[in-house]
Amino acid sequence: MGEHWDVSLRHLAWQAIEAALDDAKTTDIDALYVGNMLAGRLSHQDHLGALIADYSGLRGAEAVAVEAGEASGAIALRQALLAVKSGEIKTALVVGVEKATDQTGSEALSAQSTSLDADYETMHGVTPAAVAGLMMQRYMHEHQVELENFAGFSVNAHANAGANPLAMYRNRLKAERFAAAPVVSAPVNLFDAAPVADGAAAVVITSHERALAMAPKPVRIAGSAVATDGFALHDRQDILWLSAVTKSTQAALKRANLAIEDIQLFELHDSYTVMSALALEAIGLAERGQGWQLAAEGKIGRDGPYPMSTFGGLKARGNPLGATGLYQVVEASLQLRGEAGDCQIPDVKIGLTQNLGGSGATAVTHILRV
Amino acid sequence: MGEHWDVSLRHLAWQAIEAALDDAKTTDIDALYVGNMLAGRLSHQDHLGALIADYSGLRGAEAVAVEAGEASGAIALRQALLAVKSGEIKTALVVGVEKATDQTGSEALSAQSTSLDADYETMHGVTPAAVAGLMMQRYMHEHQVELENFAGFSVNAHANAGANPLAMYRNRLKAERFAAAPVVSAPVNLFDAAPVADGAAAVVITSHERALAMAPKPVRIAGSAVATDGFALHDRQDILWLSAVTKSTQAALKRANLAIEDIQLFELHDSYTVMSALALEAIGLAERGQGWQLAAEGKIGRDGPYPMSTFGGLKARGNPLGATGLYQVVEASLQLRGEAGDCQIPDVKIGLTQNLGGSGATAVTHILRV
Repeated sequence: MGEHWDVSLRHLAWQAIEAALDDAKTTDIDALYVGNMLAGRLSHQDHLGALIADYSGLRGAEAVAVEAGEASGAIALRQALLAVKSGEIKTALVVGVEKATDQTGSEALSAQSTSLDADYETMHGVTPAAVAGLMMQRYMHEHQVELENFAGFSVNAHANAGANPLAMYRNRLKAERFAAAPVVSAPVNLFDAAPVADGAAAVVITSHERALAMAPKPVRIAGSAVATDGFALHDRQDILWLSAVTKSTQAALKRANLAIEDIQLFELHDSYTVMSALALEAIGLAERGQGWQLAAEGKIGRDGPYPMSTFGGLKARGNPLGATGLYQVVEASLQLRGEAGDCQIPDVKIGLTQNLGGSGATAVTHILRV
Repeated sequence: MGEHWDVSLRHLAWQAIEAALDDAKTTDIDALYVGNMLAGRLSHQDHLGALIADYSGLRGAEAVAVEAGEASGAIALRQALLAVKSGEIKTALVVGVEKATDQTGSEALSAQSTSLDADYETMHGVTPAAVAGLMMQRYMHEHQVELENFAGFSVNAHANAGANPLAMYRNRLKAERFAAAPVVSAPVNLFDAAPVADGAAAVVITSHERALAMAPKPVRIAGSAVATDGFALHDRQDILWLSAVTKSTQAALKRANLAIEDIQLFELHDSYTVMSALALEAIGLAERGQGWQLAAEGKIGRDGPYPMSTFGGLKARGNPLGATGLYQVVEASLQLRGEAGDCQIPDVKIGLTQNLGGSGATAVTHILRV
């Protein structure tokens, strides 16, 4: 995680694929699903399904690229799950890959803004940070909350990242420094926003029976769901309610035959602290306007009832955009397998991962269990 | 089909979606699959799943964008089919949409070239036309064929487009003019290459039982398959054999429990005449080096044994890149339903559509029947 200027897009993907195939103890792959957001813009390279299949020794196999802005990683996993469930694909490989830092400045910002509405948002200067700023400003006004009340999310992320050797920011962050950080797009500041990064992560998906025969410690995806919301922020009835998060969470829980109270681990899309607060409210863990309190009261820590961002989350592990959703799934899987090293939470059997695109126009939720 | 500068990307998609929903007599859609190639580059807009779902009255529904270069349309259909087959999605909507002509010159060329290898092809000046030129040159050398021998493909496409009011080029094309056309990338010339266009096409996919209850004239997708090849042309063992075409055709036929001899209609990816010749060879209708003869001998005409490009194909109907694969499926469906108007072929019950990405690195084949 970080800046990988010495590794090509395809090789970055391969590094994750190699690790996933090693872990799953198979090379017998029928289909490849690639999640990516920026390659067409920043690497002048689309058609990543065939490209990465070829480079990874899967020439000939079915392969496709899947995109939903910053939710591209998890939504690629969703396609693989449906493909395996259909019976036509026996074993699928899913990789999320992003080379986000090869270009900087206006070109990078323009590319990162393509998940927002080009005609009604980006054209007028609204960027991902700006849209988060608008939401945070409204949240603070509506619920009488101050900037420092959001500090708990970033403090927790940095504390957890300290135990993750692959994280970008392993330094401790104090609440006082959070509140005093330089402003990016008011009130969003530097320690509020997750850093965009290069990265790749991959998983192998197969049927329950095959998984048991194939790998020593398979994790079951018990539920999976995608939902959408109004695309542009101004066009939603309520900009402080992430309705796609609610819908996809409820649908994934229903498919898993579980309730939110059963979830022991939460890898949410903490791209900005306000998104974490809103997600905790929309998934039903906090009342409206009180999501920030779970962080402020330490309830999202590794020893709390709602452990969040256990490897550092987008904020401190880093946010490789189209790969982020698969980082979440890999990290949750390591937790469920008891292989999370110094990041480990005790006795965790059921986890939830949630990946958002744009300002929440797409929400992808997966429920994992062992 | 053509240049739609007065219609936005989302509205172009909606026009096709409205027609598909009207035709299927439903508005009850669980998931939207969007095929598109260029929007991130040319419209600064990605995240088309949520965008088009919202604009089409499907806010809340599962939605995703799917990409495989010029094969994006058909590969979006493939995901919808697997989703419906999985049982989690009851009814899916698939739309292919492309706004390719809002920008011209180097920016358009750069965007259209993203389906080739950025590091090993495009960087050195290889464009889609150039890569087709390399293949055609080799074909002519290897098989002792002249440029004029390929004329039959374009002549047939224009003749068929004359009966299609939505086609871009409805004028008759004579073989003499084909051979004398200005050269684009030797030996590919202006009448050899399909014109890039704006356009959108959509279909509704549901289970067999639901389709019978829903729509008056449903078409069955009997087989569907995706295969890949070496990504860069120079990296294939044999640049005159489209191995992904062979693989995906054989897999689709097997799933449909049919043989190539059963197919009565062929909507192939005639982006360049050499691609048509190579595809006819790779799907098993012609010996190596003889694909062009089927066109030269008039066997691909509407009254021939292998009718091809019956609405004009990519060459004369136009090539809206990420939407092309769905144009093929819509046109084949109209043929099978006997609703092809002046383009109608008599007594056609089984058709094959095939959509290629890059220089054949991805091939997507569907078998349709009534």
